[in-house]
Amino acid sequence: MNSISELINKIGQKAKLASVTLRIANTEQKNSSLDSIANQIQENKQLIIDANNLDMHAAKKNNIDDALLDRLMLDDERLDAVVESLKQIANLDDPIGKTSEFAERPSGIKIGKMMVPLGVIGMIYESRPNVTVDAAALCIKSGNAVILRGGSEAINSNMAFYTCIKNGLNDVDLDPCSVQLIEVTDREAVTELVRASEYVDAIIPRGGKGLIKNISKNATVPVIKHLDGVCHTYLDKDADPQKGMDIAFNGKTRRYGVCNATETLLVHKDFDGKALLKLISLFSEKGVEIRGCEKSQQLSSEINKASESDWTEEYLAPILSMKIVNSVDEAIKHINTFGSAHTDAIVTENDRHSEKFLSEVDSSSVMVNVSTGFADGFEYGLGAEIGISTGKFHVRGPVGLEGLTSQKYIVMGDGQIRP
Amino acid sequence: MNSISELINKIGQKAKLASVTLRIANTEQKNSSLDSIANQIQENKQLIIDANNLDMHAAKKNNIDDALLDRLMLDDERLDAVVESLKQIANLDDPIGKTSEFAERPSGIKIGKMMVPLGVIGMIYESRPNVTVDAAALCIKSGNAVILRGGSEAINSNMAFYTCIKNGLNDVDLDPCSVQLIEVTDREAVTELVRASEYVDAIIPRGGKGLIKNISKNATVPVIKHLDGVCHTYLDKDADPQKGMDIAFNGKTRRYGVCNATETLLVHKDFDGKALLKLISLFSEKGVEIRGCEKSQQLSSEINKASESDWTEEYLAPILSMKIVNSVDEAIKHINTFGSAHTDAIVTENDRHSEKFLSEVDSSSVMVNVSTGFADGFEYGLGAEIGISTGKFHVRGPVGLEGLTSQKYIVMGDGQIRP
Repeated sequence: MNSISELINKIGQKAKLASVTLRIANTEQKNSSLDSIANQIQENKQLIIDANNLDMHAAKKNNIDDALLDRLMLDDERLDAVVESLKQIANLDDPIGKTSEFAERPSGIKIGKMMVPLGVIGMIYESRPNVTVDAAALCIKSGNAVILRGGSEAINSNMAFYTCIKNGLNDVDLDPCSVQLIEVTDREAVTELVRASEYVDAIIPRGGKGLIKNISKNATVPVIKHLDGVCHTYLDKDADPQKGMDIAFNGKTRRYGVCNATETLLVHKDFDGKALLKLISLFSEKGVEIRGCEKSQQLSSEINKASESDWTEEYLAPILSMKIVNSVDEAIKHINTFGSAHTDAIVTENDRHSEKFLSEVDSSSVMVNVSTGFADGFEYGLGAEIGISTGKFHVRGPVGLEGLTSQKYIVMGDGQIRP
Repeated sequence: MNSISELINKIGQKAKLASVTLRIANTEQKNSSLDSIANQIQENKQLIIDANNLDMHAAKKNNIDDALLDRLMLDDERLDAVVESLKQIANLDDPIGKTSEFAERPSGIKIGKMMVPLGVIGMIYESRPNVTVDAAALCIKSGNAVILRGGSEAINSNMAFYTCIKNGLNDVDLDPCSVQLIEVTDREAVTELVRASEYVDAIIPRGGKGLIKNISKNATVPVIKHLDGVCHTYLDKDADPQKGMDIAFNGKTRRYGVCNATETLLVHKDFDGKALLKLISLFSEKGVEIRGCEKSQQLSSEINKASESDWTEEYLAPILSMKIVNSVDEAIKHINTFGSAHTDAIVTENDRHSEKFLSEVDSSSVMVNVSTGFADGFEYGLGAEIGISTGKFHVRGPVGLEGLTSQKYIVMGDGQIRP
């Protein structure tokens, strides 16, 4: 066993121990730890910004691109947002200990289910240092110990946040090992963490596709993963033309760099022709490049030719692929073949078509007459999200506090023995 | 890529394709395929028994032990039970397509969840050939395609069942690749299957601890696993003495070889002394060896000394470990330290103690005044079980049809776009 695996083992043991006390911490204790962390951050703003300056300086020296620099940067305003987010998480309902209704069985025993923490979460993320605080807060609130592994480019900022978190936990007498940050930046630490199934109950990676694929390949701990969002909006022949235009335009252009942005527009050949031309010109005015199938290209000279790879591309940019289809079935087949099972919407006034779409599209969110931009934990009422799961196992779609829980069976009786 | 990995790839592709049609098959279609498989088995009883004779003959030649031979053996009566089980599964409620209540959000969109199949299940099991039919039936009913990998010792029996399943699926016009059996017996096929994350959504292993540990170590596909059942019964100081005796005796002696059997008896030092002595003599009469802590040994000369390893041992035999504890806290700590998070029961009339036990014991089933023998999918009202999950991820405790499903978000709107 080398020193990195020893380190991860030690961190894992401490996390498991902390999870035992955190599991039975009551809501008040957990909330006051979040308050106390918020106070620590408030009081140490300058220290955090100084630490962040070290990261920013190093990043600039390494010629890191502007988008990444922007995600790395912390200032007074962003720290206020971090503090605000802690207060919001403290205000969320505590899922732990909630029980379902009990059902009485012929034997006379009563069966219910109780929501309990998963145990220990391993969180692996890149660049944005505020994830350190958000993830810690969501895990504490759901009674889980967490092991954090941030990107090396944010190590000073993360360490500064981590100090605030530790002090905050100490203030309220919760095990400070409830939250631990892996301070070494070796990649091997990630490999060890995702295989530490003795201590870690779930891994949540947040970052680029490369990071997540690599983790999935190596992990023996279950992974709640977010791969790509190749989202579709399908304008049915029975769509309301105005709704179709609005939803498609909003789905694509609301924000380009987000996973719930529409990347492919599917249009039924009998969708209102005038509305479609209007929509194409709106995209053009907005500077969105359209890459279309042959039939779409006949609609406007401004539409470029799509290649096969466009159907699976998550652009995260002002580019939209577009295909004319002959039926709702063809649209569904296209989505299930080329999509990423993230979020897909149909615009139609035809109930038979929307029902078909809802039951047959195999994605984490399936929508009717709504912009794909709504796929989000806050919009769904989860209060906060730690990620969006594109896997089907355990939790699917936006992951809030309940996604960090497990359920155990509670069985109540009055002396029953089994024949 | 060698020939085994090519084979598993091909099987995986076919399964994924089959899962697309199976996902949208309606309840009638799925049920009639189960009926049709039942008919095939009924009509081909003799062929199945002949195939099983080949396996039994080979097993005897390999000096396989009696318990295993018994699990391998098929006869007329056991085939009737297989047919009966198919009928029971056909009678279960179809979970697929069920939607939760919809909640309206401030934006006006309505959010609900719909139960959908996981997709493709990989089932890896040993010796008992009836698992071939049970697993196939539960997967079909829950809309999942399944890849079966049985033990090499049952290959002829499994192949005979497999022929019936294929013919049954063909009769009702469902994709025959909805169920596939891996016909090669190389171990490498298992390794390839548990890493085929492109095609397989979940692995369910059923068999010895060695098999399951090995699978968990290699798998990149999520595993619904059942490790051991080191179940505890705790007799509290405020227990009703008669209930305590009955529940402890039943938990241990109902059946020795099952995972929900009580393996460790914890007794509060102030539990009714007369009842405890009576219980010890009942165990003695029944031929159950007790291995106890020092204090227990003082109760009776018939109690042997327990070693540290006894606290983590799943005996599956007429042996019981026993410990005297000073408090409900000590009992809970013992269970969370040495138990296997399967099923643990408290016997008490004290509500504060039972509530503490329920919330603090971290096991898949936690029971009050009930024998651990009740931990079972049928007793819990799941109708059938494909296994008992000792993991916390996705599904915990007895796994029925719902454990084989995922949930997707359904979002309904009326043209909403997101600011």
